[in-house]
Formats: sequence, C-alpha cells, structure tokens
Amino acid sequence: MSGSLPINQFDPTAPTPQNTPLTQAPIALGLSRPTVPDISEEHEEGMDDEAAVVADAMTSGVMQGALAGLVQNRLNDLIGKSSGYIESLPVEVKRSVAGLQGIQVKQTELQNQFKREVWELEKKYLGLTKPLYERRHAIISGSEKATAEEIAAGEEQAKKDDEEHQPLPTGTEVAPITDFWLTALQNHIGISELITDRDTAALKNLTDVRLEYLTSGDQPGFKLLFVFSPNEFFENEVLEKTYLYHAEIDYSGDFTYERAIGTDIKWKDDKDLTKEIEIKKQRNKNTNRTRLVKKATPTESFFNFFNPPQPPPEDMEDEDELADLEARLELDYQIGEDIKERIIPHAVDYFTGKALEYDAEDMDDDDEDDDEDDDDAFEDDDDVCTVSFLR
Amino acid sequence: MSGSLPINQFDPTAPTPQNTPLTQAPIALGLSRPTVPDISEEHEEGMDDEAAVVADAMTSGVMQGALAGLVQNRLNDLIGKSSGYIESLPVEVKRSVAGLQGIQVKQTELQNQFKREVWELEKKYLGLTKPLYERRHAIISGSEKATAEEIAAGEEQAKKDDEEHQPLPTGTEVAPITDFWLTALQNHIGISELITDRDTAALKNLTDVRLEYLTSGDQPGFKLLFVFSPNEFFENEVLEKTYLYHAEIDYSGDFTYERAIGTDIKWKDDKDLTKEIEIKKQRNKNTNRTRLVKKATPTESFFNFFNPPQPPPEDMEDEDELADLEARLELDYQIGEDIKERIIPHAVDYFTGKALEYDAEDMDDDDEDDDEDDDDAFEDDDDVCTVSFLR
Repeated sequence: MSGSLPINQFDPTAPTPQNTPLTQAPIALGLSRPTVPDISEEHEEGMDDEAAVVADAMTSGVMQGALAGLVQNRLNDLIGKSSGYIESLPVEVKRSVAGLQGIQVKQTELQNQFKREVWELEKKYLGLTKPLYERRHAIISGSEKATAEEIAAGEEQAKKDDEEHQPLPTGTEVAPITDFWLTALQNHIGISELITDRDTAALKNLTDVRLEYLTSGDQPGFKLLFVFSPNEFFENEVLEKTYLYHAEIDYSGDFTYERAIGTDIKWKDDKDLTKEIEIKKQRNKNTNRTRLVKKATPTESFFNFFNPPQPPPEDMEDEDELADLEARLELDYQIGEDIKERIIPHAVDYFTGKALEYDAEDMDDDDEDDDEDDDDAFEDDDDVCTVSFLR
Repeated sequence: MSGSLPINQFDPTAPTPQNTPLTQAPIALGLSRPTVPDISEEHEEGMDDEAAVVADAMTSGVMQGALAGLVQNRLNDLIGKSSGYIESLPVEVKRSVAGLQGIQVKQTELQNQFKREVWELEKKYLGLTKPLYERRHAIISGSEKATAEEIAAGEEQAKKDDEEHQPLPTGTEVAPITDFWLTALQNHIGISELITDRDTAALKNLTDVRLEYLTSGDQPGFKLLFVFSPNEFFENEVLEKTYLYHAEIDYSGDFTYERAIGTDIKWKDDKDLTKEIEIKKQRNKNTNRTRLVKKATPTESFFNFFNPPQPPPEDMEDEDELADLEARLELDYQIGEDIKERIIPHAVDYFTGKALEYDAEDMDDDDEDDDEDDDDAFEDDDDVCTVSFLR
C-alpha cells in the first residue's frame, strides 16, 4: 500500500478534456452494453429489461438511488433556508451582495479565458504529439522499422516497470504488429464488452485510431477517426465519431457534451454487423402452407458506436424512457472519452496489457467481500436474444 | 430536460486542478462525517461503527462493492490473457513493440510538459483573479463600498438568472455582509454536515478564505487559508490547510495527493471545539465515596479539518482499518478540492444559495422512487455519542 490513493472513487464529474480517469468509470466496467433501438415490429422484451437494469444501475440505482433521497431532502432544506435568509437582509446589505455578484461576472470571464487557454494548449500538444503517433502507426504497419534507439528506450522502460523483464535477444530484424488496435481495444474493459465475436473479424482491419479537434465553426469538440484497410465488411476507409461540446462553458468552467455524430457505415451485402438476420416460419392460415421470412433485427455490436443515441427531445416525459436514454448517452460519451484520453495516448500499454495492471491495482485496493453476492445480483445477458444467424 | 446531460455521475476520477465537479461527490453528499482518532482509554464503539459504515459506503460498499467482484474477475481474465499473448509473439514483433514503448516514453514526456503548462496557467489565472478576490473581501468586510457599476452588473446578472428578480430600490447606501463565509460554507452540502452548532459561533469570525499555490520546493500543491478576526476560541489569526501532490505526475497525467497538513490550533482555555468534556462519576470501592472526573473526548467538528488523517504506513495490514483510513483521506481531499474549486471561486453563489440550485438541478434528473427505503437505510447519527458538555 503506497501513500498514493485514488482520491475519490465516486467523483461524479463530467469527463472533460483535462480529466483523465485513473480507473474506468463504473459504466465502462463491463456491466453494460449499449442497447439499440428496436426497429422490428416485434417487441424485444428482453433487451428493454436489460436497458432498464443498466439505466437503473447508472442513473438512479446502485449508488445514486441510495443517496438521492437523503440529499434531495437536504437540498430542499438548504435552498428554502438560504432563499429566506437572503430575502430578509437589509437593502444596504443586499446592495453589497449585488456588488459581489457584479464582481463574480468578472471572475467567470477569467474562468472562461482560462478554459480557452487550456483548450488551445490541448490542441498545441496534440500537434506536438502527432509525429510520434505517425511514427507509431508506421511501425505497427511495418512501413517503417523501429530503430535500435527506440527499441533500447522501450527496453529500458520495460526494465523500469518490471525488474524481471527478460531483455530481447540482440538483433535488428523487426516485423509489423498484427491485430494491434483490436488487441488494444479488447484490453479496455468497457470496450471489450462491446466487441462481439463477429466484430472481431472486422476490427482485425483497424489500422489506426486518431484524434482531431474541431477547428471550423464556433462549436468546440473533437473527432475520433478509425482507419481501416480494405475489408469484406464495409466500403468506408475511415469511420468517424464526432463529439460536440456545448458552445458555452458551464457553471463549473467545464465543457459539456451536446451530442455525438457517427459515420454512416456502407455495409457490404449481408455483412451488417449491427443486424442479425432471423428466419421465421410463417404459416398461411388459408392454404396451411409455410414460408420462410427473413427479418433484420438490431443487435449488439461495437459498430453501433457509429450510430450514437441522440439527446432526448424537450418534451420527453416517460421517466423510464428518459433514464434509459440518458444511460445510453452517458455510456457513449464515456467510451468516446476513454478512447480519446486513454487508448489513443497509451495504445501500446493497452496492447501489452500494462494499462490494465494500473486499473487492477486500483481495484485491488477495494474490499472483495461481497463478490459472490454481486455476481448473483447481475444476470449474464449473453442469452437475452436467441436468434439464428445467417452468415 | 435540456440536451445538456451530466455526462457521468460516477466517474471515479481523482480530483485534479482541472477537474471541477458539476455536482458534489457522493462522499460530500451529507452522508458522512470525518471521524476522529480516539485518544481516550475508553473505546467509543459507536464512532467506530459509524466510521466503518462510511468507509464501507465509500470504498467498497454501495457502488464499488456491487461492481468490484465482476470487474476483478474480468481484469484477471484480461491480464492473464494479454500476458500470454505478448509472450507468444515472435521476437521480431516484440522488437517493434519495444520500439513503440520507446516512443511512448516521449509521448509521456509531452504529456508531463502539457500538465506543467496547465499548472502554470492555473497560477497565472489565480494571480489575475486575486484583485477581484481582494475587492470581494473589502466589500464583505465593509472596508470598501460596492460601486454603482458593480451593483448594476450584479443586478443585471440576477435578472438573467431569474426573470422574476425584484430590482433593488435605488440608493447608494451599502453595509458589510455579516456571516458571509459561515453562510457560504453552510450552503455546501458536504461541509454543512461537518459544522456543528458549537462550530457556528467560531465560524462567525471567519472573514476570508484564500487559495495559494505552493511555489517553494519541488513538490506541487496548494494551501487554503482561513482568515479569522480575533475571537474567544483560538489565538491563531489564520488557519491553514496545505495539500501536497506527489512530485511525479501519475500514469494518467494527473496530480495525485500525497498528504495534507493543517495548522496546529492554539485553543483558548476550555474552548477546544474538537473535544468534548465528559464528566463521569467514579466510586471509590473502599470508601464508597464518589468523585467527578473530567475526560476530554475527540468529537465531531469542522475544525478537525485542520488535523487531517495521514496516509497509511506501508505495513498496515488490517483491511477494515485501512478502508476506514482511506475513506477519511478521500473525504479530506474531496473537501479541500471543493473549497478550492467551488467555494472560493463561487463564494457569492454559495452565500445566496444559487450554487445549490445548480446542484439541485443535477439531482432532480435522477429518479426518486427509492427515497423512503434510502431514508430507512441510514440511521441518523446525531445521537451516537451522548455526553454532557462543559460550556
């Protein structure tokens, strides 16, 4: 046990560009999968239940639900109290308070300036890092070879990280690293849960993952680019996911997400990984003859990441529906944030699994007394949808 | 419901200088109070139980406990898997991976440079904001008067925030704002829980709360200064709380806390708010005569903030003790973070309660179905210690 502690395991902070989680957010901890809108006529009861469980656990259930009541009461107390208190102040004091509020406007302006300067710094450092990312890509693909100096620097670091590290045999022959990005994504706990066996074949063609900041227009945001080699699944060479922040910085001085936009994937015939083809027998009541009907049903897939949920309309009133949607939005934003802040900057550590060891150390700090109960509390959802596949 | 969502209510990110929570961390949500080491011979069973509940809820219980088992299993799977995979790679590929690790070293250097530049920006903006903080202090104390321009700017903002805001009567008379900082602290949900009735009298003398960054020495950190007018409770004019970060930026590019140091409060006679005086009758077995014995027992008080828990020694093995200590450290770091990031920059909004409304909006988004159960699940701890006071 070192003196370094995870300072707050439950900080409900919105992910921001300066906010790199030490550990995965619980929503990315392998519990949940994004659910997909049901476009078939048939109502998929199982999936809605699952979505409800996820939504419940994330927005109101396990943690929040246990505290919300207490806190809401406390908030009501405090708000009621403070309003009355301010009302009761003599007008001379109220003028001083108004003066402070005038000064607060200037403080907020400075806070926004600070945020903009940090944002510019982020862009500057992405620019400085870009040549390193390009070099990384070249070595992975084999278009360039790692130099003796690079290998020596890596070996030195590996030795620092692990005293028992076995040095590589001398030699200069190098080879490309196959399945680099697939492996890196699979070593992120939350994302690995999104990747189905069928997705794996497509993700073997993922050759790079890149970050760009949005520079055109007033709206700040960033774009994740997934670069693919030609493959049997889709026509696109690059799949993009764009995250837009609100133009206005919020009360706390942070950007907040407005919405996300994904590339429309041009699937090749019968290769859409986000759909499952179900074959049903239909019997004609008059002739009593049967026929086979092919029905496409949305299914879990990493590639649903490119068809993100959209923020709820102002007039959405169904609380369950709203909670479900908010849970899916949270998950989508968190996955994007983790790819931007963790996987792209530390891809080799995700590939080797070193990044996981850091996560594991954080987890080891926690009690595990309740493991059995916890396992029982959540059902395996692999079998929620039982359909037959057309391959 | 707007399109702006709290992106992740449960992000387990360590608070960092760039990380301003949108809502309070659950540990600051009014559930917990810091417990104090028991220096009396008598074992205070009640307080230890309470500490255990807090620790459980925070580090392993409500949220973490529900997920830790699942995740730990998943981590073990992944780590085992990835290690074997890397071992099995041909040496030519391993050399390429080592090359990437060499490049990662350079990426990490850039990440650290970025962090240092942001840290310098923070200092710069604190410097730019300082004249505004000094002006605020002067208006609160009445040593300077709010100008007509400042009042007008504040009124304009109040009108923007609330369409029904009643404009102040015309006039230029202004008066100091009594109990400004006490009220601001009481309007922070977590901190209000730390302030006892006895503390209130002392905190009425709190005239300013200031932030300084540490500039001497290699170790980064910050200092909170609580400035008091002369009072009946203690001799100190300023109570300080210093938070030290680890000199090395962590894997994720964030500062992590190393430890906190507080001012040794010079209490006046019988005025120590962190102690309660218990009077016990003792009966002499031989003479059968009774006498009164005065015993000082540590008690809950906001002023325990200046006697923070210290990180566990390397060899601490008792898991419950460790979990309890970590919970208290987390709470201490979170309170410091909230004072630095929320209360000092938005003091007038805490005074008026506006800051609470933002918190309340976040809470309103959550389901409240389980309120009753939740209230039942936690016992009121006001009566855990029943002792008689010497005033």
